[in-house]
Amino acid sequence: MPPHAARPDRHAPTTPGEFALISRIIKRLGAAAALDILVPPGDDAAIWRADSEGVVATIDALTEGTHWRADTMGFEDVGWRAVTANVSDLAAMGAEPAYLLVATSLGPSITPSDVDALVDGLAASCLEHGVRIAGGDVVRGPATMLTISTIGSATFKDGQLRALRRNSARVGDIVAVTGHPGASATGLAAIERGLTDDPDAAPLVAAHRRPTARVDVARQAIAEGLSCAIDISDGLLQDCDHIAEASKVGIEIDAEAIPLHPAAAELLGADEALTLALGGGEDFELVLVGDRSKLEALATDVTVIGRIVDMHPGETVALDAGGSPMSVMRRGWDQLSSSDSAP
Amino acid sequence: MPPHAARPDRHAPTTPGEFALISRIIKRLGAAAALDILVPPGDDAAIWRADSEGVVATIDALTEGTHWRADTMGFEDVGWRAVTANVSDLAAMGAEPAYLLVATSLGPSITPSDVDALVDGLAASCLEHGVRIAGGDVVRGPATMLTISTIGSATFKDGQLRALRRNSARVGDIVAVTGHPGASATGLAAIERGLTDDPDAAPLVAAHRRPTARVDVARQAIAEGLSCAIDISDGLLQDCDHIAEASKVGIEIDAEAIPLHPAAAELLGADEALTLALGGGEDFELVLVGDRSKLEALATDVTVIGRIVDMHPGETVALDAGGSPMSVMRRGWDQLSSSDSAP
Repeated sequence: MPPHAARPDRHAPTTPGEFALISRIIKRLGAAAALDILVPPGDDAAIWRADSEGVVATIDALTEGTHWRADTMGFEDVGWRAVTANVSDLAAMGAEPAYLLVATSLGPSITPSDVDALVDGLAASCLEHGVRIAGGDVVRGPATMLTISTIGSATFKDGQLRALRRNSARVGDIVAVTGHPGASATGLAAIERGLTDDPDAAPLVAAHRRPTARVDVARQAIAEGLSCAIDISDGLLQDCDHIAEASKVGIEIDAEAIPLHPAAAELLGADEALTLALGGGEDFELVLVGDRSKLEALATDVTVIGRIVDMHPGETVALDAGGSPMSVMRRGWDQLSSSDSAP
Repeated sequence: MPPHAARPDRHAPTTPGEFALISRIIKRLGAAAALDILVPPGDDAAIWRADSEGVVATIDALTEGTHWRADTMGFEDVGWRAVTANVSDLAAMGAEPAYLLVATSLGPSITPSDVDALVDGLAASCLEHGVRIAGGDVVRGPATMLTISTIGSATFKDGQLRALRRNSARVGDIVAVTGHPGASATGLAAIERGLTDDPDAAPLVAAHRRPTARVDVARQAIAEGLSCAIDISDGLLQDCDHIAEASKVGIEIDAEAIPLHPAAAELLGADEALTLALGGGEDFELVLVGDRSKLEALATDVTVIGRIVDMHPGETVALDAGGSPMSVMRRGWDQLSSSDSAP
């Protein structure tokens, strides 16, 4: 008896194994699969040509229940956002994102159409951001999770790394932001409160479910010689705190200057819109810090919202219209901070 | 009231959040943390200098219950093996592994000492394999999972990629293997059957819990001009199948030639030891395919176990002492092949 007779399940298309599933996923990814690199997906590892002197890499894990909920987001949104979040991490460094490795654990309740939707979301966001998937891993697990590693190239000039760091803010620098901080959190609030039929909600829900990373602005910032940025993934104030801590400076944010999304105040009122702009995460807009002239020279408009100060090092303070400090709770993704679950 | 008064938990060391946990992990990693690269862990992404024209990358996800069980393996073993498995994927390409990104989801039952053990295992295996951790992500989730992405550099000669591929086996090539296939599966069997007090069990249990990747042999293979290899992660026959499928050739394995671990037959009997050698995965030994002269020229001894043939393309056939095909069930890690769980 030939060996394959002992393992009919490996060749029966009605019971696809890991390899058949991976083939199906690669096919469904279409142009988002990196099939023309030196060693494309399908071997032990992928290989591509390095296109700079520096390799830039990040990894992010998302778990169902913690990072997304089935009642506020479909699997296509989950795939889209996961790519965006990863690409945004490289944009926040002023790096060029290129290739993604995607590992997913499929939980017991996931369906074939869920997997297809996840793959479609991954592919669409890859095409939007000009990146491709070079490899991955698919396993069964007790819960559905998605982990993406994004690898790209750093910019060098005269042999020196040009990057947007958290630790390069200096006293006297200006703080600016792209887009409308809080739009994603406002969109989530609209979904949770059943307000999605409100015409004001549409752009905010899109900001929550289909955000894009600001690779374009980061590229301009590097070209202008800026050297300090972070993306708003944890929330505007908390991400400013990361810059303040790494740079050992204080940051003042003028709350009135924050460019709220016009629909946010219409939908939730100005006070809550501001709270979500200060504390809500997952916007994937960029906070840029540096000389005013360089910030104003960017091809994309950014909004000046604050300054680096020689006070309260490591802390960000939001100031009200009268210049008084506001008390604002950070609401970012510090998932491990609750005392009952911290290891 | 200054803003920080509204969030006391963020600065209280008794309730560490994500950032404090990450700091503790980086400290505990010691020399396994890549603190001297261009942008070390702590920014949005890590940056290091590329040291070849080619970037090599892989990703692997492990879930508790599917890839390891608490009753057969401690968290230190889990960390060790996860690094080994990743490094082995790059060794199987003839690449130089360099940096790891580690994402972990901590399930509800994990304890602080479990996390420490996991980190210790990661660090020890990194030091053993000469790689370092450049970044990571730690999240809470409904289950404990570990996903590692390993990035390294490819070898080039005269501008041409030199890699060990699955698709480069040719009819007439010889098939060789490093080490003792089946040692890991035999070690697992010893643990499951309570045989760990048997003196024969010790090296097998070590092969299961603390395997090492064969980066050294892969380096020699590239230097000798070999171009085809795979690591034994799914099981000897199944991994040979991957070569057979990618190269569109048939493979014959002489079962009697397989270098069983001397203790394996002592512990389980020759028949079961052979079955586990043919079907058991997770050895992280290498199957090398090519000219006999090149295989014999390797500085590390390898064992010739078979040949590439112009028959049964895509299939591997194990032959008994009389040269007749054996019926052997593949037992590799094709976790998604059961019909009740395939999406």
